[in-house]
Amino acid sequence: MEEVEVAPPQTMEVRLKILFTSLCRSDVYFWEATGQTPLFPRIFGHEAGGIVESVGEGVTDLKPGDHVLPVFIGECRECRHCKSVESNMCDLLRINIDRGVMLNDGKSRFAINGQPIYHFLGTSTFSEYTVVHVGCVAKINPAAPLDKVCVLSCGISTGLGATLNVAKPKKGSTVAVFGLGAVGLAAAEGARISGASRIIGIDLNAKRFDEAKKFGVTEFVNPKDHDKPIQEVLAEMTNGGVDRSIECTGSINAMISAFECVHDGWGVAVLVGVPNKDDAFKTHPVNILSERTIKGTLFGNYKPRSDLPLVVEKYMNKELELEKFITHEVSFSEINKAFEYMLRGDGLRCIIRMDA
Amino acid sequence: MEEVEVAPPQTMEVRLKILFTSLCRSDVYFWEATGQTPLFPRIFGHEAGGIVESVGEGVTDLKPGDHVLPVFIGECRECRHCKSVESNMCDLLRINIDRGVMLNDGKSRFAINGQPIYHFLGTSTFSEYTVVHVGCVAKINPAAPLDKVCVLSCGISTGLGATLNVAKPKKGSTVAVFGLGAVGLAAAEGARISGASRIIGIDLNAKRFDEAKKFGVTEFVNPKDHDKPIQEVLAEMTNGGVDRSIECTGSINAMISAFECVHDGWGVAVLVGVPNKDDAFKTHPVNILSERTIKGTLFGNYKPRSDLPLVVEKYMNKELELEKFITHEVSFSEINKAFEYMLRGDGLRCIIRMDA
Ligand SMILES: NC(=O)c1ccc[n+]([C@@H]2O[C@H](COP(=O)([O-])OP(=O)(O)OC[C@H]3O[C@@H](n4cnc5c(N)ncnc54)[C@H](O)[C@@H]3O)[C@@H](O)[C@H]2O)c1
Ligand SMILES: NC(=O)c1ccc[n+]([C@@H]2O[C@H](COP(=O)([O-])OP(=O)(O)OC[C@H]3O[C@@H](n4cnc5c(N)ncnc54)[C@H](O)[C@@H]3O)[C@@H](O)[C@H]2O)c1
Ligand SMILES: [Zn+2]
Ligand SMILES: [Zn+2]
Ligand SMILES: [Zn+2]
Ligand SMILES: [Zn+2]
Repeated sequence: MEEVEVAPPQTMEVRLKILFTSLCRSDVYFWEATGQTPLFPRIFGHEAGGIVESVGEGVTDLKPGDHVLPVFIGECRECRHCKSVESNMCDLLRINIDRGVMLNDGKSRFAINGQPIYHFLGTSTFSEYTVVHVGCVAKINPAAPLDKVCVLSCGISTGLGATLNVAKPKKGSTVAVFGLGAVGLAAAEGARISGASRIIGIDLNAKRFDEAKKFGVTEFVNPKDHDKPIQEVLAEMTNGGVDRSIECTGSINAMISAFECVHDGWGVAVLVGVPNKDDAFKTHPVNILSERTIKGTLFGNYKPRSDLPLVVEKYMNKELELEKFITHEVSFSEINKAFEYMLRGDGLRCIIRMDA
Repeated sequence: MEEVEVAPPQTMEVRLKILFTSLCRSDVYFWEATGQTPLFPRIFGHEAGGIVESVGEGVTDLKPGDHVLPVFIGECRECRHCKSVESNMCDLLRINIDRGVMLNDGKSRFAINGQPIYHFLGTSTFSEYTVVHVGCVAKINPAAPLDKVCVLSCGISTGLGATLNVAKPKKGSTVAVFGLGAVGLAAAEGARISGASRIIGIDLNAKRFDEAKKFGVTEFVNPKDHDKPIQEVLAEMTNGGVDRSIECTGSINAMISAFECVHDGWGVAVLVGVPNKDDAFKTHPVNILSERTIKGTLFGNYKPRSDLPLVVEKYMNKELELEKFITHEVSFSEINKAFEYMLRGDGLRCIIRMDA
């Protein structure tokens, strides 16, 4: 816990007062820095809800007081990706784990005694105030409770969109979800909304299974309970393979199993987990040739500014339940507890209150 | 060249008089038997056109005299695959490289002096008469010239369908085609029909490039002319990657390049080539995560009985040109010439006249 100076927003930037933030596996991943060149000191955090405090030059569609969700990928609305209906990988504001500065001047807005502190994923929400590019901010319904919808700013939208926007299971399908953390359970929630008749949850942590029942998961498989590859177990359970699978673990073995467990002819596997730097996805090409599909997605293919306000409306209309994802709540001073819960695989999302 | 006895068709079988057949790379591949347990003696050939000579019990939708194309995968019309709009991998009649006998009695219909000669891919068209399952026979317009439309019975439909049914490029897209044999050029033809604005052909054999111009290929890349991986060359040519790629080589390196050369956010790669037994498709999972798609297809996802008659109609309506695929013609006694042409990479399809 340190006092940090947060400079005012520059051109196309906004300064946000963060009210609630939560911990996502990707924070732990990049904090442990196993996957990339570490850049420290840095302010982590990217799943949050807050209020616009001030806006920089050129910002016309946000004003102080607006309720917003910052997002780790942005939407400039000008590039080929933003103009494509298929992609949300904005050329200007795509995820960049190495960039710790703002685009406008290549500098950080955070400092302690004049020494810069780096940004993280364009968001850095583990701070009472943060500065982000306007393209990374979704303006949402001010009636939406920020302590709930903040979880839509990363994990839950990612899992939900992976199913609804990318895997697109048909009614009556069998869907396998690898990894029953918040992202995986949001993917399961998407399968339930899509009318899947069987939702098979796969996790190495048996503790996850109880929680998963609340998310419509109908069957559980723990790879530790089987001697053979889990894709073979799933093929036997499903007469040849599942219709859709969604991998939400970050484990390369799970990615390969998630692909190989889909049915030939029509099966689609969607990768969501963030792999390690040296991982290799490896499969026999005949598995692909026999009419299987693999796809990947960032943020569930949602465009943050265009689509996220509508996901918030799904919550407001009670089409989507968020409460069941929130298993813990702590004050900012207790943030280390949130890390402990995640590292222990205990609960799903832990809301961190910034005002307390 | 040998005299072979061809037994009458049994239940759900038909005996065909083959009039024209052609050589596909897969015949050479399985003849060399690099990919699987060899089963000999065997009658090869699976790309052909002919006339129904007699029908077995239970066959109601074919009669002697019908013009037909035999196909290496069948359509039983009853199984989950046949009922799915996405798959053509019929459970009963899917491609089975190891099966050399008929399903009805587990025996061959070919014999020399009472010794069985095995079937190949359910078709065995390098024979004046052959017996096939009714589900592997597409009944076509009798006005269609069999010496032309016979090439639709495998390679040309495979390439065309890979583009039209699976890759589905949008108008104005950039499409890469790996391998400019008949299959790849049919994929290029599909790209041209789809309104692709750039069609980039990639082949190790520079002889292919002249021919490819007739198929709407607008640019050529020979991996031999470059020091760096061909996916990087293509990314530079296309500002980040192609919109669609179709791999029609059978080379595992080309399969990996075909995947890695598609644009992040929306790129789709389709694998068509038949790999070797020990090949491994290997890529960094981040290439998938960044919203690329890989799919595979057999026979261009066409269902033989339902869809192939309509592809023949495309030729009859002059939407599809077949003449340019046919570069050689020989009599059955000269069949070895057809093998030589293919092994030399000379020309595209060689029609073998069975009556001469
Ligand atoms: N693509 C994106 O845009 C995006 C966005 C957010 C999170 N993520 C990634 O999604 C993944 C899930 O995030 P989360 O917050 O739900 O994490 P989490 O740690 O809460 O959940 C992951 C679960 O996977 C399980 N698991 C690990 N290896 C496994 C294996 N081999 N087989 C089966 N289960 C296994 C763990 O036991 C755990 O329950 C992480 O990799 C995260 O970095 C991706
Ligand atoms: N999926 C299916 O249903 C299906 C059906 C028919 C054919 N096939 C397969 O499609 C492939 C093409 O068949 P074809 O009859 O056109 O064969 P072909 O031999 O006529 O053409 C293949 C071309 O690929 C080129 N090539 C080989 N390795 C290459 C590489 N690394 N990079 C670039 N080019 C390379 C060759 O020079 C050749 O011109 C074969 O593997 C065949 O077995 C698949
Ligand atoms: Zn996250
Ligand atoms: Zn953009
Ligand atoms: Zn063939
Ligand atoms: Zn069938």
